[in-house]
Amino acid sequence: MSPPHTVIDWERGARTGVPEVVFAQSKTVEQLRAIVEAHHERGRALLMTRLTAPQIAALADLPLDIDPLARTATLAAPEVPSGAPRLGIVTAGTSDLPVAREALHAARFLGLDAVLYEDLGVAGLWRLQDRLDEIAGFPLLIAVAGMEAALFSVLAGLVRAPVIAVPTSVGYGVSEGGKAALSSALASCAPGIVTVNIDNGFGAAAAARKFLPAPG
Amino acid sequence: MSPPHTVIDWERGARTGVPEVVFAQSKTVEQLRAIVEAHHERGRALLMTRLTAPQIAALADLPLDIDPLARTATLAAPEVPSGAPRLGIVTAGTSDLPVAREALHAARFLGLDAVLYEDLGVAGLWRLQDRLDEIAGFPLLIAVAGMEAALFSVLAGLVRAPVIAVPTSVGYGVSEGGKAALSSALASCAPGIVTVNIDNGFGAAAAARKFLPAPG
Amino acid sequence: MSPPHTVIDWERGARTGVPEVVFAQSKTVEQLRAIVEAHHERGRALLMTRLTAPQIAALADLPLDIDPLARTATLAAPEVPSGAPRLGIVTAGTSDLPVAREALHAARFLGLDAVLYEDLGVAGLWRLQDRLDEIAGFPLLIAVAGMEAALFSVLAGLVRAPVIAVPTSVGYGVSEGGKAALSSALASCAPGIVTVNIDNGFGAAAAARKFLPAPG
Amino acid sequence: MSPPHTVIDWERGARTGVPEVVFAQSKTVEQLRAIVEAHHERGRALLMTRLTAPQIAALADLPLDIDPLARTATLAAPEVPSGAPRLGIVTAGTSDLPVAREALHAARFLGLDAVLYEDLGVAGLWRLQDRLDEIAGFPLLIAVAGMEAALFSVLAGLVRAPVIAVPTSVGYGVSEGGKAALSSALASCAPGIVTVNIDNGFGAAAAARKFLPAPG
Amino acid sequence: MSPPHTVIDWERGARTGVPEVVFAQSKTVEQLRAIVEAHHERGRALLMTRLTAPQIAALADLPLDIDPLARTATLAAPEVPSGAPRLGIVTAGTSDLPVAREALHAARFLGLDAVLYEDLGVAGLWRLQDRLDEIAGFPLLIAVAGMEAALFSVLAGLVRAPVIAVPTSVGYGVSEGGKAALSSALASCAPGIVTVNIDNGFGAAAAARKFLPAPG
Amino acid sequence: MSPPHTVIDWERGARTGVPEVVFAQSKTVEQLRAIVEAHHERGRALLMTRLTAPQIAALADLPLDIDPLARTATLAAPEVPSGAPRLGIVTAGTSDLPVAREALHAARFLGLDAVLYEDLGVAGLWRLQDRLDEIAGFPLLIAVAGMEAALFSVLAGLVRAPVIAVPTSVGYGVSEGGKAALSSALASCAPGIVTVNIDNGFGAAAAARKFLPAPG
Amino acid sequence: MSPPHTVIDWERGARTGVPEVVFAQSKTVEQLRAIVEAHHERGRALLMTRLTAPQIAALADLPLDIDPLARTATLAAPEVPSGAPRLGIVTAGTSDLPVAREALHAARFLGLDAVLYEDLGVAGLWRLQDRLDEIAGFPLLIAVAGMEAALFSVLAGLVRAPVIAVPTSVGYGVSEGGKAALSSALASCAPGIVTVNIDNGFGAAAAARKFLPAPG
Amino acid sequence: MSPPHTVIDWERGARTGVPEVVFAQSKTVEQLRAIVEAHHERGRALLMTRLTAPQIAALADLPLDIDPLARTATLAAPEVPSGAPRLGIVTAGTSDLPVAREALHAARFLGLDAVLYEDLGVAGLWRLQDRLDEIAGFPLLIAVAGMEAALFSVLAGLVRAPVIAVPTSVGYGVSEGGKAALSSALASCAPGIVTVNIDNGFGAAAAARKFLPAPG
Repeated sequence: MSPPHTVIDWERGARTGVPEVVFAQSKTVEQLRAIVEAHHERGRALLMTRLTAPQIAALADLPLDIDPLARTATLAAPEVPSGAPRLGIVTAGTSDLPVAREALHAARFLGLDAVLYEDLGVAGLWRLQDRLDEIAGFPLLIAVAGMEAALFSVLAGLVRAPVIAVPTSVGYGVSEGGKAALSSALASCAPGIVTVNIDNGFGAAAAARKFLPAPG
Repeated sequence: MSPPHTVIDWERGARTGVPEVVFAQSKTVEQLRAIVEAHHERGRALLMTRLTAPQIAALADLPLDIDPLARTATLAAPEVPSGAPRLGIVTAGTSDLPVAREALHAARFLGLDAVLYEDLGVAGLWRLQDRLDEIAGFPLLIAVAGMEAALFSVLAGLVRAPVIAVPTSVGYGVSEGGKAALSSALASCAPGIVTVNIDNGFGAAAAARKFLPAPG
Repeated sequence: MSPPHTVIDWERGARTGVPEVVFAQSKTVEQLRAIVEAHHERGRALLMTRLTAPQIAALADLPLDIDPLARTATLAAPEVPSGAPRLGIVTAGTSDLPVAREALHAARFLGLDAVLYEDLGVAGLWRLQDRLDEIAGFPLLIAVAGMEAALFSVLAGLVRAPVIAVPTSVGYGVSEGGKAALSSALASCAPGIVTVNIDNGFGAAAAARKFLPAPG
Repeated sequence: MSPPHTVIDWERGARTGVPEVVFAQSKTVEQLRAIVEAHHERGRALLMTRLTAPQIAALADLPLDIDPLARTATLAAPEVPSGAPRLGIVTAGTSDLPVAREALHAARFLGLDAVLYEDLGVAGLWRLQDRLDEIAGFPLLIAVAGMEAALFSVLAGLVRAPVIAVPTSVGYGVSEGGKAALSSALASCAPGIVTVNIDNGFGAAAAARKFLPAPG
Repeated sequence: MSPPHTVIDWERGARTGVPEVVFAQSKTVEQLRAIVEAHHERGRALLMTRLTAPQIAALADLPLDIDPLARTATLAAPEVPSGAPRLGIVTAGTSDLPVAREALHAARFLGLDAVLYEDLGVAGLWRLQDRLDEIAGFPLLIAVAGMEAALFSVLAGLVRAPVIAVPTSVGYGVSEGGKAALSSALASCAPGIVTVNIDNGFGAAAAARKFLPAPG
Repeated sequence: MSPPHTVIDWERGARTGVPEVVFAQSKTVEQLRAIVEAHHERGRALLMTRLTAPQIAALADLPLDIDPLARTATLAAPEVPSGAPRLGIVTAGTSDLPVAREALHAARFLGLDAVLYEDLGVAGLWRLQDRLDEIAGFPLLIAVAGMEAALFSVLAGLVRAPVIAVPTSVGYGVSEGGKAALSSALASCAPGIVTVNIDNGFGAAAAARKFLPAPG
Repeated sequence: MSPPHTVIDWERGARTGVPEVVFAQSKTVEQLRAIVEAHHERGRALLMTRLTAPQIAALADLPLDIDPLARTATLAAPEVPSGAPRLGIVTAGTSDLPVAREALHAARFLGLDAVLYEDLGVAGLWRLQDRLDEIAGFPLLIAVAGMEAALFSVLAGLVRAPVIAVPTSVGYGVSEGGKAALSSALASCAPGIVTVNIDNGFGAAAAARKFLPAPG
Repeated sequence: MSPPHTVIDWERGARTGVPEVVFAQSKTVEQLRAIVEAHHERGRALLMTRLTAPQIAALADLPLDIDPLARTATLAAPEVPSGAPRLGIVTAGTSDLPVAREALHAARFLGLDAVLYEDLGVAGLWRLQDRLDEIAGFPLLIAVAGMEAALFSVLAGLVRAPVIAVPTSVGYGVSEGGKAALSSALASCAPGIVTVNIDNGFGAAAAARKFLPAPG
C-alpha cells in the first residue's frame, strides 16, 4: 500500500473565494513538508494553522514566516493590497491572543487590512470605551473572548458594525473548553452577532473575507 | 397509614437567621392550606414561593398577599423596619421580572429595604449607565439575568459593591434552562461576583440578608 | 407596587441600525397589547416574534399582519425599498419553515429583498443542484436546517457567498432541541459559515441586515 | 496471586463469524507478547488494533505486519479470497485516515475485498462527484468522517448501497471527541445509514463482514 | 405569500431504493391531507410515521390503515412479495412496542417478510434463549430496547446475523430520552452491531431493506 | 505557615466499621510517607489506593505490599479470618482488571474472603455460563465492567444474590470515561443491582463489608 | 395483527427472589386491566408502580389498594411476616415522599418490616440527630433525597449500617431531573453508600430484599 | 509585529476595591517577568495565582514569596492591618488544600484576617462539630470542598454566617472536574450559600473582601 498523502485542492481559491489553508495539527511532519514543498515549487502562497510546537521545530529549515504564539506559518504571503477592506479584531484578554493572532494572520493572508486591539475585556469597561471611536469605524469586527465572554454582547451593543464572535477555550471550571463563551455568543441579546467554532480564528477571518467586498 | 404532612420548623429563624420559607411547587394544596392555617393561628408571618397557577387559584380564599407574576404569597408580612439595610436588585429584561420580584418580596419579608431596577440589560448599555450613580450607592446588589447574562460582568466591573448573580431560565436554544447564564456568572472575569442556582430569587435574598448587618 | 411594564427603546434603530423587535413568548398579553398600542399611536412600525397560539388568538382584534406558522406579527411594516440588498433564504425541510419564515419576515421588515427557497435538503441533492444557479446569485445566504443539518456544509461548498446558518430544533433522539444541527454549523469544514442560536431566524436576518450595505 | 492474563477465545470465529480481534490499547506489552506468541505457535492469524506508539516499538522484533498510522498489526493474515465481497471505504479528510485504514486492514483480515477512497469530503463536493460512478458500484460502503461529517448524508443521498458511518474524533471545540460527527450520522435525514462508535473502524468492518454474503 | 406546502419526491424510490416516507409529527393536518390525497389520486402507496393522536383523529375519514400504538398509517400498502427477504425484529419490553411496530410496518411496506418477537429482554434471559433457534435463523435482525439495552450485546453475542440496534426513549432518570440505550448500542463489545437514532424504527427498516438483497 | 499535613482518623474503624483508607492520587509523596510511617510506628494496618506510578517508585523503600496493576499498597494487612464472609468479584474484560483488583485487595483488607473471576463479559456468554454454578454460590457479587457493561444486567438476571456494579472508565467514543457503563448499571431492568462511582473498586468492597455480616 | 399484550413471568419470584412488579407508566389501561385480572384469577399478589393519574382513575373499579402520592397499587398484598428483616427509610424533604413511599410499599410487598422517617434533611441537622439512635438500629437504610442530597453522606457518616441512596428528581436549575443528587450519592466520600437510578424507590427496596437475609 | 504584552491596570484597586491580580497559567514566563519587574520598580504589591511548576522554577530568582502547593506568589505583600475583618476558611479534605490556600493568600493580600481550618469533611462529622464554636464566630465563611461537597449544606445549616462555597475539581468518575461539587453548592437546600467557579479560591477571597466592611 502506498503511503498516505494529502490531495491539494489547487483550484479551491478560484472556486470558492478562499484558498485551501492547511490545518496542521493532525498531519504528520512528512505530510506538512510535502505540502510546503509543493507550494514552494509552484510559487504558491500557503498558510498553515494549528502547528504544534514539535511541528514548528521540525519545519525550522523551511522558508516559512512562523508565529509561535499564533501557531501559524505562511509561505510567500502576498502583501495586503492598498484599498483592501478594513477589519478590526478585538480581544478580551492576554490569553485570547493566540486565537486573535491566528485570525489576524489569516485575514491578512486573504487580503484584508486587519488591525488587532488587545486586552479590551469588560472587567475594565473603560479600556473598551477609550478605544471605541476608533473601533466603531470598521465595517466589520471580529471579537475574540473566552471565560464568560461578555465582550461579545457589550461590543455589539456599542457599534453599528456586525460582529463575528470567536469564543476561545481559555478558562477553567465551567468555562473550560470554551462552551460557556460559545453560549454567550449564541445567546446574546444584542442583534448582529454571528459565531464560529471555539478557537476558530481562521474561520472568522475566512467568513470576514466573504462578507467584505473584494478590493478593487 | 396516616396522610403525609409537613414538619414546620418554628425555631429555624432563631437558629439560622432566616425563617423557614415554603417552596410550594411540589406540595399539594392540602399541605399548603395546613401550613397557612398553622401560621395564621399562631400569628406568624409566612412567605411561600414557586406557587403554581392552580395552587394560587385554590388558595384564593385565604388572607394572603399574592403576586402572580412572582408566584409568591405572604401572610402577615412585617413592615420593613426603618434603618433597614438597603439592597439593589437589577434585572436585564422583562422576562427576568418573575425571578427578580421573588427576590424583592423575599428580601422585604426578611427585613431588607430592597429596590428593583428593571430592564437594564447590556444590549442597551446606556440604560444601565443612566442609572449607574443611583445603583452604585447600594452596599450590595442582586443582578437577575437570563440568555447570555452579560449584565453580571458589566455591572461588577462598574460598581464597588459585591454582586449576587441570579441566572434565569429565560432563553431558548443554547440558553434554554439557564445553564448559559449560570456559566456567565461563574466564569466572569470581574471579581466580586457570587452566584446562586438558576431562578433562585429567594436564595439570593436570603444570602443578602446574611451578608448585610442586622438593623439596629 | 405598580404593575410590570416594558421599557420601549424608541431610539435603538438610530443607535444600532436594528430597531427593537419584540420577543413575545415570555411576555403577558397585557404587555403585548400595550406595546402594540404605543407603536400604533406613534405610527411606528413593529415586528413581534415568537408569539404563542394563545397570544395570537388574544391579539386578533388589533391591526396586525400575522403569520401563524412563523409565529410573527407586523404592524405597519414598510415596503421593501427598490434597490434593496438581496438575500436568499434556503431551507432543508418542511419542518424548518417556521424558522425560515421568521427570518423572511424579519429581513423584509429590516429592508432586505429576501426570497425563500423551500425543501432543498441534501437527502435529495438534485433539488439543491436544480436551483443552484439562482441561489448562487445572492450576495448573502441564510440556510435553515435541523436534524443533522448537512445542508450548511454542502451549500457553503457550492457557492461563493457567505452563509449564515440557522440550526433548528427539528428532530428527535440525538437531534432533539437542535444541538446536533448547531454542531454541524460550527464544526463545518467549509469556510465562510457563521452561526446564530438554534431557531433564531430573527437573529440571522438582523445580522444579514448589518452585513449587507444599506440601500442607496 | 498469579499475574493477570488474557483468556483467548479460540472458537469465537466459528461461533460468531468474526474471530476475536485484540484491542491493544489497555493491555500491557507482556499481555500482547503472550497473545502474539500463542497465535504464532498455533499458526493462527491475528489482528491487533489501537496499538500505542510505545507498544509498537516494544513489539518490533515480532513477525508482525504493522501500519503505524492505522495503529494495527497483523500476524499471518490470510490472502483476500478471489470472489470475495467488495467493500468501498470513503474518507472525508486526511485526518480520518487512521480510522479508515483500521477499517481497511480489518475488512481484508476478515476476507473482504476492500478499497479505500481518500479525501472526498463535501467541502469540495466535486471530488466526491468525480468518483461517484466508481463508488456507486459497491454493494456496501463504509464512510469515515469527523468534524461535522456531512459526508454521511451526502453519500447516502447519492448511492443506493447502505452506508455504515464511522464518526471520527477529529476536530476541536464543539466537534472535539467526535460527538458532533456521531450526531450527524444518527440524525441524518437520508435513509439507509447505520452507525458504529466513534473511531471504531474495526467495528464497521466486522459489521460489513456480517452484512455481506460469505464468499463461495 | 402562498401557503407552505410539501414538495413530494415521486422519483425517490427509483433513485435511492427507498420511497419517500412522510414523517408526520411536525406537519400540519392540512399538509398531511394534501399528501394523502395526492398519493390516492395517483394510486401510489404511502407510509406515514410519527402521527400524533390529534393527527390520527383528524385523518379518520381517509382510507388509511392506522396503527395507533405504532403511530403509523399506510395507504394502499402492497402485499409482501413471496420469497421476500426475511427480517426478525426483537424487542426487550412492552414499552418498546411502539418503536418495534413502526419498524415492522415500515419493513413490510418496503417489501420485507418481517416477524416481530416481543418481550425478550435480558432480565429474563431464558425468554430469549427459548426462542433462540428460531431467531438465529434470520439473515438480519433488528433489536429494539430502551433503559440499559443489554439486549443488543447479548443478542449479538448469541447469533451470527448482523444486528441493527434501535435504542428507545423508554426509561427515566439516567435512561430518560434514550441516551443510555444508545450508548449501550455504540459501546457494545460484541462485533456486528450497528445503530440508528433513538426511536428510529423506520430508519432501521429502511437500512434493512438496503442491506438485504432485493427479492427475485 | 507550617506545611500541610493530613489528619489521620485513628478511630474511624471503630466508629463506622470501615477503617480510613488513603486515597493516594492527590497527595504528595511527603504526605504519603508520613502516613505510612505513622501507621508503621503504631503497628496499624494500612491500605492505600490510586497510587500513581511515580508515587509507587518513590515509596519503594518502605515495607509495603504493592500491586502496580491495581495501584494499591498495603502495610501489615491482616490475614483474612477463617469463616469470613465470601464475596465473588466478576470482571467483563482484561481492561477492567485494575479496578477489580483494587476491589479484591480492599475486600481482603476489610476481612472478606474474596475471589476474582476474570474475563466473563457477555460478548461470549458461554464464558459466564460455564462458571455460573460457582458464581451463583456467593451471597454477594461485585461486577466490574466498562464499555456498555451489559454484564451487570445479565449477571443480575441469572443469580439470586445482590450485585454491586462498578462501572469502569474503560472505553472510547461514547463510553469514554465510564458514563455509558454507569448508565447501564443505573438503568438496568434487572432488580437487585446497586452502583458505586466509576472505577470505585474500593467503594464497592467497603459497601460489601457493610452488607455482609461480620465474621464470628 | 393481534393486539399487543404483556407476557407475565409467573416464575420470576421463584427464580430470582423478586417477583415481577409492573412498571405501569408506559402501558395502556387495557394492558394494566388484563394484568390485574390475570393475577386476580390466579389469586396472585401484584404490585404496580408509576401509575399515572389517568391510569389510577381508570382502574378505580378494581380491588386494588392504591396510594396516589406514591403512584402505587397493590392487589392481595401479603402481610409482612413476623420476624421479617427490618429496614429504615429516611427522607430529606416533603417532596421526596412519593419516591420514599414507593420504596416503602415495595419493601413491605417483598416481605420487609419497613419504617419511614420523614423530613430529616441536613438543612436542619438537629432533626436527623434527634432520631439518630432509632435510625442507627436498623441493619440497612434507604435514604431518599433530591436537590443537593447531602443527606446521603451525612447519614452514612453517622451510622454503621450500609445505605442505599435513592436520588430524586426534585429540584430546579442545576438539580432539575436529579442528576445533582445522583452525583452526590456516587461521589460521596463516606464509604458504604450504594446507589440506584433517580426516583427508583422500587429498585432500592428490591435490592434491600436481596441484601437482607430471608425471614425464617 | 511587536511581541505580545500585558496591559497592567494600575488604577483598578482604586476603581473597584480589588487590585488587579495576575492569573499566571496562560501567560508566558516573559510576560510574568515583565509584570513582576514593573511592580517591583514602582514598589507595588503583587499577587500571582495559578502558577505552573515550570513557571515557578523559571521565576526562582525574583524576590517573590511562593507557595508551591497553592501555586501562588506574592511580591511585597502588605501586613494584614490590625482590626481587619475576620474570615474563616474551612476545607473538607487534604486534596482541597491548594484551592483553600489560594483563597487564604488572596484574602490576606486583600487585607483580611483569614484563618484556615483543614480536613473538616462530613464523612467524619465529629471533626466539624469539635471546631464548631470557633468556626461559628466568624462573620463570613469560605468553604472549600470537592467530590460530593456535602460540607456546604452541613456548614450552612450549623452557622448563622453566610457561606461562600468553592467547589474543587478533586474527584473522579461523576465528580471529575468539580461539576458534582458545584451542583451541590448551587442546589443546596440550606439558605445563605453563594458560589464561585470551580477551584476559584481567589474569586471567593475577592468576594469576601467586598462583602466585609473595610477596616478602620
